[in-house]
Parts: sequence; structure tokens; C-alpha cells
Amino acid sequence: MTDPNCIFCKIVAGEIPSNGVYEDDQVLAFRDIQPQAPSHLLVIPRAHVASLDAADEGDEALLGRLMLACRTVARAEGLAEGGYRVVTNIGDDGGQAVHHLHLHVLGGRSMGWPPG
Amino acid sequence: MTDPNCIFCKIVAGEIPSNGVYEDDQVLAFRDIQPQAPSHLLVIPRAHVASLDAADEGDEALLGRLMLACRTVARAEGLAEGGYRVVTNIGDDGGQAVHHLHLHVLGGRSMGWPPG
Repeated sequence: MTDPNCIFCKIVAGEIPSNGVYEDDQVLAFRDIQPQAPSHLLVIPRAHVASLDAADEGDEALLGRLMLACRTVARAEGLAEGGYRVVTNIGDDGGQAVHHLHLHVLGGRSMGWPPG
Repeated sequence: MTDPNCIFCKIVAGEIPSNGVYEDDQVLAFRDIQPQAPSHLLVIPRAHVASLDAADEGDEALLGRLMLACRTVARAEGLAEGGYRVVTNIGDDGGQAVHHLHLHVLGGRSMGWPPG
């Protein structure tokens, strides 16, 4: 459930600092160190799952928890009224930079289309 | 659970045609009519939920199902190996065009950063 070479697992373990905004028993959220919008948060599972493609049927509840956590942190960040975007990248074409499932929550500006 | 003025509810009801790629008892997926990538699919719940912000704790399993359906349709579309991006827009800043929760699955090209 933990990958010793994964930077997000190290954040979960407290071995690397992060600017945390939310945590519960399964989920952690913190600010992206290279923000692409005035608010740019990352929501991750504590358990190591490489990407959405690596999730399986048994992860249904966890995936739902992650989505609800995106809503929770967006509300706490004051983004609910203006709006925001939630993004997850899978693999090279997706632009996935860290191979630990994470959802980007971006807001505080008008997000363009297409989404990258 | 259905909004009579919602275009996606009409698609669920079969009143408006769509280019379907997947369906189960809770979820429908079809091709976006204004594709932003070689593969651009939309994954929606049959029930009317206005956006992720309108979801509540009781929707956890549904949200997980939607995420797993994104993985399923991406695999069927041949995107799993190359990679893809999953996006959901909430409100004006997010660029939400239809106010029925939907997840965009985009792949078949390298997705840029920032995501809009």
C-alpha cells in the first residue's frame, strides 16, 4: 500500500513536507507546488494507487471519497460559488507527473477549453 | 432524479440521440459532440445531479462508479496504454456547459498543461 520511491507516499508518511489543507483516514489534500491557478490543490489517497487505470472495483468507495474530498476542499477554499475544475491525469498522454493517483482541483480564475 | 429541461436527462431517457459507448444501471457514456481530442467521451450518472458540488455524502458510491466507468471506457477506447485525462467542470469558472454532472475522458493525443 506504500511505494518507498513515491514522493506522494513520502508526503503521506510525513517524510516530505507539504502545505496541507485537508486530511482524513483515507485522503490527504495539499497545495500543488507549481500552481496553475490561484487555487490549485491536490487530493490523494493515503494508499498507493498508481493511477485511475490501476484502480479496481474494490476501490469504488475510495474513488468516491476522493471526489467528495475535492468538493470539500473546493468549498473550504471558497471556490464553490465561482466554480472550479477537477482533473486527473493517467499516463504519458494524460501528462501524469507523479505515479500516485491524484486529483487536481483548480479555481480562482476562468478555466479555458480545451482542458490542455 | 430527472430534470425535464436537462439535455443529458433527455439523453438518458432516449429522447435525444447520442453516440453511446457504455451503459449500466447507473451510468451512461457517449461521445462528446464537440470533441477536443481524438477520443473524447462523456460519462454521466442516469440520475440528475447538477455538478460535483451538488453531490452529497450519499453519492459516494455513485461517484466511485463514475470514476471506474471512466477507466472502463478509456480501456475500451484503447487509451489505457498511451494515457488519458479525466476532467469535470463545476460552475462558471470551471467552464461547466451542461448542468448535469459529467466527466470528460480525453485521449489519443498528448494533453497539455495547464489543463485549460
